[in-house]
Amino acid sequence: MMERRNLVYVTRRERFNAAHKLWNANWTDEKNAEVFGKCANPNWHGHNYEVFVTVKGVPDKDTGYCVDLKQLSRLIENKVIQHLDHKNINLDVEFMQGKMASSEMLVIAIWDQLEMEIRALGVDLHAVKLYETENNIAEYFGE
Amino acid sequence: MMERRNLVYVTRRERFNAAHKLWNANWTDEKNAEVFGKCANPNWHGHNYEVFVTVKGVPDKDTGYCVDLKQLSRLIENKVIQHLDHKNINLDVEFMQGKMASSEMLVIAIWDQLEMEIRALGVDLHAVKLYETENNIAEYFGE
Amino acid sequence: MMERRNLVYVTRRERFNAAHKLWNANWTDEKNAEVFGKCANPNWHGHNYEVFVTVKGVPDKDTGYCVDLKQLSRLIENKVIQHLDHKNINLDVEFMQGKMASSEMLVIAIWDQLEMEIRALGVDLHAVKLYETENNIAEYFGE
Amino acid sequence: MMERRNLVYVTRRERFNAAHKLWNANWTDEKNAEVFGKCANPNWHGHNYEVFVTVKGVPDKDTGYCVDLKQLSRLIENKVIQHLDHKNINLDVEFMQGKMASSEMLVIAIWDQLEMEIRALGVDLHAVKLYETENNIAEYFGE
Amino acid sequence: MMERRNLVYVTRRERFNAAHKLWNANWTDEKNAEVFGKCANPNWHGHNYEVFVTVKGVPDKDTGYCVDLKQLSRLIENKVIQHLDHKNINLDVEFMQGKMASSEMLVIAIWDQLEMEIRALGVDLHAVKLYETENNIAEYFGE
Amino acid sequence: MMERRNLVYVTRRERFNAAHKLWNANWTDEKNAEVFGKCANPNWHGHNYEVFVTVKGVPDKDTGYCVDLKQLSRLIENKVIQHLDHKNINLDVEFMQGKMASSEMLVIAIWDQLEMEIRALGVDLHAVKLYETENNIAEYFGE
Repeated sequence: MMERRNLVYVTRRERFNAAHKLWNANWTDEKNAEVFGKCANPNWHGHNYEVFVTVKGVPDKDTGYCVDLKQLSRLIENKVIQHLDHKNINLDVEFMQGKMASSEMLVIAIWDQLEMEIRALGVDLHAVKLYETENNIAEYFGE
Repeated sequence: MMERRNLVYVTRRERFNAAHKLWNANWTDEKNAEVFGKCANPNWHGHNYEVFVTVKGVPDKDTGYCVDLKQLSRLIENKVIQHLDHKNINLDVEFMQGKMASSEMLVIAIWDQLEMEIRALGVDLHAVKLYETENNIAEYFGE
Repeated sequence: MMERRNLVYVTRRERFNAAHKLWNANWTDEKNAEVFGKCANPNWHGHNYEVFVTVKGVPDKDTGYCVDLKQLSRLIENKVIQHLDHKNINLDVEFMQGKMASSEMLVIAIWDQLEMEIRALGVDLHAVKLYETENNIAEYFGE
Repeated sequence: MMERRNLVYVTRRERFNAAHKLWNANWTDEKNAEVFGKCANPNWHGHNYEVFVTVKGVPDKDTGYCVDLKQLSRLIENKVIQHLDHKNINLDVEFMQGKMASSEMLVIAIWDQLEMEIRALGVDLHAVKLYETENNIAEYFGE
Repeated sequence: MMERRNLVYVTRRERFNAAHKLWNANWTDEKNAEVFGKCANPNWHGHNYEVFVTVKGVPDKDTGYCVDLKQLSRLIENKVIQHLDHKNINLDVEFMQGKMASSEMLVIAIWDQLEMEIRALGVDLHAVKLYETENNIAEYFGE
Repeated sequence: MMERRNLVYVTRRERFNAAHKLWNANWTDEKNAEVFGKCANPNWHGHNYEVFVTVKGVPDKDTGYCVDLKQLSRLIENKVIQHLDHKNINLDVEFMQGKMASSEMLVIAIWDQLEMEIRALGVDLHAVKLYETENNIAEYFGE
């Protein structure tokens, strides 16, 4: 029987409300409209994004914690939410410059904002899951 | 005992994703920032809005319906959702021109878009309820 | 200032999974299909119904209860859920015989199943709210 | 036609996690167990409570607000959440002393904590709705 | 360090309302009732099913998309939802013929309806997750 | 092409309402307050916990089931819910004695309560996922 390490996955949900549009600056307006449809509305649209950040680690005997969720929440707030909440993803967010403002590109960028800092808390980042709407979800595991 | 009319309240949920900002054009940038905080971000932010439209009426004996919800849904789509979904509420929405883009002003404007048309379906509009986020809700009863 | 009676509204959620179709036996198949669309599928379809039963009363000083929710839940189970859960609303449910199997007719019938029995618990039935789907809701207040 | 005042109902959701038990100190242990069942567990149990505070008012022309929801949220935080969150409702909460720790008594007490302070914000408290679980809800309108 | 491919998992939620029963035609009525309990109600029952289809792929530089979710949604609509929505799973659904109408058999059948067509969109099907109720869920990964 | 075993993952949700505190008996009150903040409230606080138990197996040809969910639900009820529901996790729960009452320790303990018994039902336990709040989640896969 394999020895058990008691590896637990812990998830923290945070939320941000942002504007964006799907728009490729190298394309004509017509091509943007054709490819992205209503998501290319020139004057933007927006979402209530929900982000679920999952880390993995072995709970500490003294605290019962893999990581203090108050600390993890503060880290996500500082590195992710402050940059995105009540912002325009295309215009206002430094770590999204030069990238399409899609959920796919967002989960990768959020991963990169968090990976090293989460390691410094003594756990590993496992997944970033982003709900753009109740129907559309993107998830990234660092692969 | 009061005679019963079998008055039933029927609600249809619809959704739209829009950008907006809280911004009073008669004020300085500083006053807008002071009053509205992050909601006044110049480059907009946005939400997944959920709207619950409630009508009241007596169910028809032959159909069991107060109103055909497919018809009601189509009406809300035509008069409300098409104008708001993937739009900028401040810039793109004719029926919000000259009004603050708050949830309060939105529920009143949605009511005005629907009231007469719903009467033409044979029921009365009872309430428009709008979720801006899971924490912030506005509701209007035509009072 | 009006004297306060401390009237509190208490709601219990219950659920049932049932089959139904919208079908008027006095009509031809064609007319049923035309009026009810896919809801008239001859071989039925179904839903996870959620019912919210709201009663009103003044909390008892000794218990802090308007009504014991365990009792209320048992009553709804006996008078409503047992008759509807894992049943065909058109074929299996005595109190729906001769009625259209719409949400509107269901909320009225559920009200009639509960009104007197709830009074016997010392509170008044205030509302029956039924979610057929996350988008379609009917509510009845005994009017 | 009645003149319209544009009265809008605005709701803010807040949450608190608390321990409690249903226990009448004037009764024997046996009677408490008999009446309240598992809710009378001597060592307490607990809930994630969700509270929806609804106020009503006419939106201000300059802000589009009935009330600044940041202010309303801060008020609920100060007068309600700080007293209840991560507390024992029976032991730790001054405004629940001498009362049963039921949802019914809680909504009335939360109303009394908020009514006057909300009036000072220029709107009227309309309702306090409390979810103890997804199945059990209490609501108070000041009646 | 392993080179990163930026593999993102994208999920689309769709819904269908269907009737079914758990019924093995090779068994007596008694055995069906004994094994499946109320799920074997002869006149059917039904559910609001929610299906989450997850695909994986590398986002395109020009669009930021793994796959156009409008295209994915249309595909699920054509190959799955149209066949199941407002239908009887036992009687009306060609791809469920000769199979038990359980959630387990449904997720495998939905996988088979989608796998090749999704590959033609340039991504791989990763998972099909089906909520029969809020309490009962089945998921298939093609293993 | 790899031969397919039709391995399906089936999940059952159950709920329990419990009191707890984060408290290390080897530490001073001050250190507990410093490390755990409001979670160390001496008089406890509590939560509505939701637990999702996922098993994996190959559906039986005759039933279409990996496992009878009624049986799985009864097992979780007997081995987990009865011990935790309306209890104090620190004081009342035998299988949590000598452990911190954190979500991380709970998911491991729930796994240990279920693993062997679930194997006896003919399927393998795959995951235990626990929602302490809508924002804080722990998951264990037996690693």
